[in-house]
Amino acid sequence: MASELKVLAFDVFGTVVDWHGSLVEEVKSMCPGVDAAGFATAWRSGYKPAMARVMSGELGWTRIDDLHRMILDDVIARYAVDLDESQRVHLNLAWHRLTPWPDVIEGLHLLRQHYTVCTLSNGNLSLLADMAKNAGIPWDLILSAEVFRAYKPHKDTYLGVASVFDVAPDQVMLVAAHHDDLAAAKACGLRTAYIERPYENGRDALKDVSPRPQNELHASDFIELAELLIRQ
Amino acid sequence: MASELKVLAFDVFGTVVDWHGSLVEEVKSMCPGVDAAGFATAWRSGYKPAMARVMSGELGWTRIDDLHRMILDDVIARYAVDLDESQRVHLNLAWHRLTPWPDVIEGLHLLRQHYTVCTLSNGNLSLLADMAKNAGIPWDLILSAEVFRAYKPHKDTYLGVASVFDVAPDQVMLVAAHHDDLAAAKACGLRTAYIERPYENGRDALKDVSPRPQNELHASDFIELAELLIRQ
Repeated sequence: MASELKVLAFDVFGTVVDWHGSLVEEVKSMCPGVDAAGFATAWRSGYKPAMARVMSGELGWTRIDDLHRMILDDVIARYAVDLDESQRVHLNLAWHRLTPWPDVIEGLHLLRQHYTVCTLSNGNLSLLADMAKNAGIPWDLILSAEVFRAYKPHKDTYLGVASVFDVAPDQVMLVAAHHDDLAAAKACGLRTAYIERPYENGRDALKDVSPRPQNELHASDFIELAELLIRQ
Repeated sequence: MASELKVLAFDVFGTVVDWHGSLVEEVKSMCPGVDAAGFATAWRSGYKPAMARVMSGELGWTRIDDLHRMILDDVIARYAVDLDESQRVHLNLAWHRLTPWPDVIEGLHLLRQHYTVCTLSNGNLSLLADMAKNAGIPWDLILSAEVFRAYKPHKDTYLGVASVFDVAPDQVMLVAAHHDDLAAAKACGLRTAYIERPYENGRDALKDVSPRPQNELHASDFIELAELLIRQ
């Protein structure tokens, strides 16, 4: 018999918040005339290579705020945008102001009546705290790569959640809109739920969100996830 | 000119929650006939020596839940109480269910409109998360010795708060009912607010809560702290 599920750990960028749509609005308002969707996509795509430089040891431990700023400076140069230091600081903090998908707040309120709901994000703690306060996201605990000093998909992050709550790995379910994140969690013994976020990369770059058999649950959004979990 | 205050970091046991009163109720209900106040005091007094064993390297990194359990087993033996394993597990989790002082929730709701409010506790993350969920304490972020792998009064904990929020130490204020905690924070450059909790150790062990000049602010409770900070 499976162990009792206790903790739902949520990926954040893309799964909880619409990073693309939120960044496009911020870029549009600060850099009129620029291809805001291209700018947002370029900013986000610098993220995995930057984390790889940290995990390889080329860079020391670096918070995502600082990685975002390094990438932003590159993207600004590439798009030939004129932004001074205070404007760059402000734009970089757009990641602290990302907007949740419409189902998130209601879904989390349902889920937290039955489970502990926490983040498991590569975003740094202050980014996640500002985002939660700004949008009213009712986390029971904010956990981050910053706590474990490793970025996902390193196993210390997934196993770290189980350790923090003093439960077995299979009492934790990772909830994410990304199959690679879920596969790494599964390899550590966590349970998995895939969430469809077809517009994660923008309305013009529809994602394939079809179910894959390796994920235990598949839901269109957090409200459907609550229905799947709570009716079980 | 002083830097702008951004973050209020709260000590928890004694400052936010009434550990003595809460434990007395739990001990009374599980161990009828036992001197519940003495039992609670003995349990709490094992805490600093146990943390000292970790910080000296005699014990590896240990969460407070596990230190509390080691001490509990000693106190149970000393008081000759008959509790089986599941009762001990339940009683040990009393620390996850501690009750806030009456001013806490209202005071934090006022304070978090102007500042980031977080914990800085030696309690472990799951303890603090359960406590907040159980009592409805509206933290913006839960920080713990567990994040910094050092217990207060180690400087890594106080400076760690400033680092997490990417602010200068004097943009953080420690709020605590204990002068030694505040003195250690002040030595790291943090600002300090003392909170009167005269009954922290029980109604029969009144604490001296008179002001001391080394603390920047002195308030009877969190609502008075909000008045002092927000009218400034």
